Amino acid sequence: VAESATRVAVLGAGSWGTAFAKLLCDAGCAVTVLARRPEIVAALRDRHNNDYLPGVTLPGDLAATGEPGRAIARAQVVVLAVPAQKLRSNLTEWAPLLQANTTVVSLIKGIELGTDKRMSEIVADVTALPSAQIAVVSGPNLAREVAAEQPAASVVACTDEDRAIWLRELCRTGYFRPYSNVDVVGCELGGAVKNVIALACGMAAGMGFGDNTKASLLTRGLAETARLGAAMGADPLTFAGLAGLGDLAATCMSPLSRNRGFGERLGRGETVAEATAAIRQTAEGVQSCRSVLDLARRHGVEMPITEGVVAVCRDGLRPAQMVEALMTRKMRSE
Amino acid sequence: VAESATRVAVLGAGSWGTAFAKLLCDAGCAVTVLARRPEIVAALRDRHNNDYLPGVTLPGDLAATGEPGRAIARAQVVVLAVPAQKLRSNLTEWAPLLQANTTVVSLIKGIELGTDKRMSEIVADVTALPSAQIAVVSGPNLAREVAAEQPAASVVACTDEDRAIWLRELCRTGYFRPYSNVDVVGCELGGAVKNVIALACGMAAGMGFGDNTKASLLTRGLAETARLGAAMGADPLTFAGLAGLGDLAATCMSPLSRNRGFGERLGRGETVAEATAAIRQTAEGVQSCRSVLDLARRHGVEMPITEGVVAVCRDGLRPAQMVEALMTRKMRSE
Repeated sequence: VAESATRVAVLGAGSWGTAFAKLLCDAGCAVTVLARRPEIVAALRDRHNNDYLPGVTLPGDLAATGEPGRAIARAQVVVLAVPAQKLRSNLTEWAPLLQANTTVVSLIKGIELGTDKRMSEIVADVTALPSAQIAVVSGPNLAREVAAEQPAASVVACTDEDRAIWLRELCRTGYFRPYSNVDVVGCELGGAVKNVIALACGMAAGMGFGDNTKASLLTRGLAETARLGAAMGADPLTFAGLAGLGDLAATCMSPLSRNRGFGERLGRGETVAEATAAIRQTAEGVQSCRSVLDLARRHGVEMPITEGVVAVCRDGLRPAQMVEALMTRKMRSE
Repeated sequence: VAESATRVAVLGAGSWGTAFAKLLCDAGCAVTVLARRPEIVAALRDRHNNDYLPGVTLPGDLAATGEPGRAIARAQVVVLAVPAQKLRSNLTEWAPLLQANTTVVSLIKGIELGTDKRMSEIVADVTALPSAQIAVVSGPNLAREVAAEQPAASVVACTDEDRAIWLRELCRTGYFRPYSNVDVVGCELGGAVKNVIALACGMAAGMGFGDNTKASLLTRGLAETARLGAAMGADPLTFAGLAGLGDLAATCMSPLSRNRGFGERLGRGETVAEATAAIRQTAEGVQSCRSVLDLARRHGVEMPITEGVVAVCRDGLRPAQMVEALMTRKMRSE
C-alpha cells in the first residue's frame, strides 16, 4: 500500500463488509477491518473469513483489529457494515472516535424499527456530521460474487456530488464499476424495500410458482417502492437504476440471497420462528417490512406487496393467501 | 362454450399461441387455432401439443384447423402468434379473409429485418385496418408457466383505450391478470428489445458470471430500451411496467427462455451457426438485434449492450470481449 493511499476503516466483518474491504484493497486503499469476534480478527489476518466468504483469499495488505480505536482513529473514510438494527448502538460507541472531517459510508440496507429511520439518518443523528459527509453504497452486489471478482456495477450516493465522485473513484476496480449519484434517499429506500420484495418472490418460489409470478412480483414491487420514494422526495429514476431495479433483480434471482431464501422457507410452509432458527444470518426484510409499511401509511402510499409480507411475517397470514390476494385485486390500467 | 361467446382465431400453434388459446378458452371465448402442420392440428384436436407444450392438457372446446378461412371467417378477434420474420408473408395470405371490424391482436415480439418495423406496423401496412383495431399483448408470460396456470400478469395495449379494456376482460382468468394500456409502441419495443438483452444476460451466464453481472446487464439494458422508447414516442413508464421490466426479468431469470439459452451457448463458446443448429426454435433476438440497432442510430440513441450483441451475433466478436468492453466504459454518474 502506498504512503499516499486513502485510509479506510470497515466496521463489521460479515460477508459484504469483508468483500467491500477486499475491493477497497484491490482499488489501492489502506484498509483496516473491525471485527467483534477475536476468531474473525485472527482469520482475517490469516487472509480468509470462511464463516462468511468461504474459499476466498483476502489481500495480504488487509489489516484487521478488534479494537474500534485502532480501526477508526486515522481513517479518512469509515465504512459501516453492521446489521441495520444494530447500527445505532454500535455507532453510539464509535462516534467519539471519528475525526471531524471523516466521510462515513453506509453499506447497510434496512430501516430502523421504532423510529422508521434510514441508515444515513441514524448516522446524522448519532455523529452530528453534515449530510455532505455521509454517503451510501447500494447496487446488485451479492457479496460472494464481488469477492469472486465477478463483474458488478453499483451506486455511490452522497448529497455532495464531488464527494460521491471521489468515493466512486476510491472503490473502482477492474471488476467493480460504481456510478455516482446524489439521491441518497432513493438509494437507501431501494436497498431497504428490496429485502421485503425479495421475501415475497421467495414465498412464490417456495410455493412452486415460476418466473412469470416472480417477475410480476418484482415489477409491481419496484413500482410500489418508487411510489414511496417519490412521496419521500427521492428521484423516481433512481428506482429504474442499479440501486433500485439492479439490486432487486440480483436479490430475486439469486439463490444466495438471504431474504429470498427466507421467503422460500415461508412459502414451503415453515413459520417465521422455524425459518429464523434454520438460517444463521439476519433476513433484514422480516425486520424492515413493518417500518416500510409505517412509512407508506405516513406518506399515504399504497404498497400491497409490502402489506402482504407484513401480514405473513407478523400476523401469521399464509403465503398462499397473500399471493391469492395480490392476484385477485381489482383489474385496472397499469 | 356459450352462444354469445366472443369468437377468436389464434393464428399459429407454437408454445405461446397454444397457451394463449388455452387461456382464452378458460376465459370463456370460442377459440379456433390455426396450425400449418396437419399433425399439430390432429394433436390439438386430441387436446395436446406436445411439440411445444409437453404434458399440458388443452380444453375440450378448443377447436383447431389447418384452413385459414375456417379459423378467420367468423372471428371477431384474430390473434397473431407466428415468428416475427414470417408475419408479413403470412398476414398477406390471411388479410383478405378478415372482417372489416375485426380486432387484430399481436403476441409477437420482434422487429422486422430490412424495414425495422414493429409488428403492429406490419399489421397496419398489410391489412389497412385503423390503429384503433390493432392491439398487442406483452408481459412476463413464459408460455409453459401460463399453460400450467401459474399466476401471471400481462399488458394489453391498444391506442383505443375502450378496446384495450374490452380485450383485457376477454382474456382474464383466475391465473392470468392483464392490465390495459394505450402505449402500443412502448409495449412492442419492450418485448422486442428484451430478446436482445436476454441474449447478453445469457452470454454472461454462459461465461460463468453470476447474478450481479446479469442484474447489471438487465438494468442497463432496460435503461437503453427506455431511451430508445422515449425517442420513438413511447411512454417511459411503460418500461418500468410488466411489458418492460416484467417481461425482461422473467426472460433473464428463466431457464425456459430461448433467447437466454441461446446466449448461454454463445457464452460457452459456440458460434451462432452451432447454437442455431442445436436449438429447434427461433432465437428472435439474433434476428432483431440488427433492427434495434438501426432504430437506435436513426433516433440518435446510445445502446451499448445492443451494439455488443450485434457485434457478437453478426460480426463474430467474442462474448468475453463484449462484457469486457461494457465493464470498462468511462465512469460516470448514473
